[in-house]
Amino acid sequence: MPIEIPVVEQILSANDRIAAENRKLLDEHRVVAVNVMASPGAGKTSLILRTIQQLEGRLCVGVIEGDVAGRVDADRVAEAGAPVVQINTGGGCHLDAPQVQSALHRLPLDEIDLLLIENVGNLICPVGFSLGEHHNVMISHVPEGHDKPIKYPAMFAAVDALVLNKMDLMPYLDFDEQAFDRAVRALNADAPIFRVSCKTGVGLQAWVDWLVGQSAPSSGRGDDG
Amino acid sequence: MPIEIPVVEQILSANDRIAAENRKLLDEHRVVAVNVMASPGAGKTSLILRTIQQLEGRLCVGVIEGDVAGRVDADRVAEAGAPVVQINTGGGCHLDAPQVQSALHRLPLDEIDLLLIENVGNLICPVGFSLGEHHNVMISHVPEGHDKPIKYPAMFAAVDALVLNKMDLMPYLDFDEQAFDRAVRALNADAPIFRVSCKTGVGLQAWVDWLVGQSAPSSGRGDDG
Repeated sequence: MPIEIPVVEQILSANDRIAAENRKLLDEHRVVAVNVMASPGAGKTSLILRTIQQLEGRLCVGVIEGDVAGRVDADRVAEAGAPVVQINTGGGCHLDAPQVQSALHRLPLDEIDLLLIENVGNLICPVGFSLGEHHNVMISHVPEGHDKPIKYPAMFAAVDALVLNKMDLMPYLDFDEQAFDRAVRALNADAPIFRVSCKTGVGLQAWVDWLVGQSAPSSGRGDDG
Repeated sequence: MPIEIPVVEQILSANDRIAAENRKLLDEHRVVAVNVMASPGAGKTSLILRTIQQLEGRLCVGVIEGDVAGRVDADRVAEAGAPVVQINTGGGCHLDAPQVQSALHRLPLDEIDLLLIENVGNLICPVGFSLGEHHNVMISHVPEGHDKPIKYPAMFAAVDALVLNKMDLMPYLDFDEQAFDRAVRALNADAPIFRVSCKTGVGLQAWVDWLVGQSAPSSGRGDDG
């Protein structure tokens, strides 16, 4: 007769407990959530706007905008016709699960397939706080330089996909693409790297196809109602 | 006879106490320290390298490099011939006074007139932690966009001078200079804004002249020995 072994449950932090609640809520509503992280000005909102545009008719996108202050990003997303909630952290350097929980209760989750959560512009702090997301994505941008994986390794190591934005500026900058790829691969063996320009539209199709692939399992909206 | 009024001293946090010690040490050695803050990839190290070059023969520059990980920046500064110490925060999103204190004890302070402290790439956290510096400076860069003052107001409000770097990229980006200036001025009435390109060298003279002006009062090295 097998001995019954007591399983000691991991004591979750308050943030992780609420992140788990967020995940459950998202799953109940068949919403796939993607946490989008990057430096200030890397093009998070531009990528989100392009993604909404390209997915029109395929997936319904909702957005949570995270900023220390202001609502300029949320205004741009609302103009694009997507349901959006702005979170102002008031000095906080990352989103946390309770903030996202409040935002989820203000979104029409039954109408959303894909939720893009724009985290606060910061390459360090956001990666330490689970929001309940299904996937983590970061945007690096060409003007930021190819050495960022060496200086901010935790985020590059943690993400499921990486977008390298502003490829249109490559001719005007000393960005060593091979050095960048090598540095990323030293930290993260598998994450696809999408080279895009949100300005010209170059490379966005592959990114959007990847997103659709991640959203597919729960995208059978309408099957049961 | 005047009544003696007891003065209740402000109870300083551990960080502020050590920052005050740093300031005292710097003043004893007649070193003017400037805390340089910016997003990742804004050009902090490039500006420091250009500044060392332009000040050659006028002021002796020392450098503290702050990064989450890596020593690529310190290597570049050492190649330029300046005394430099690299601090790795190991995940921390800003420098603090104790880290800078350790670095100060490893620098030849008697040979330095101007100490440039490159903080961790982050527009949020560094501004909350005094290091003992005399001046706070931030670098914004054109590819980051003109809306950053609205989203990260605390740093723009706190600095004594602002450098807008990568002016050479202006023709390729939708950067509204008037909107940027307006947003900065709404937060900070006085800080000079230096428009520069560390790549081409444009605008650096005014920045360096300002720095020399800030360093002047304690630059009378040799008067007393």
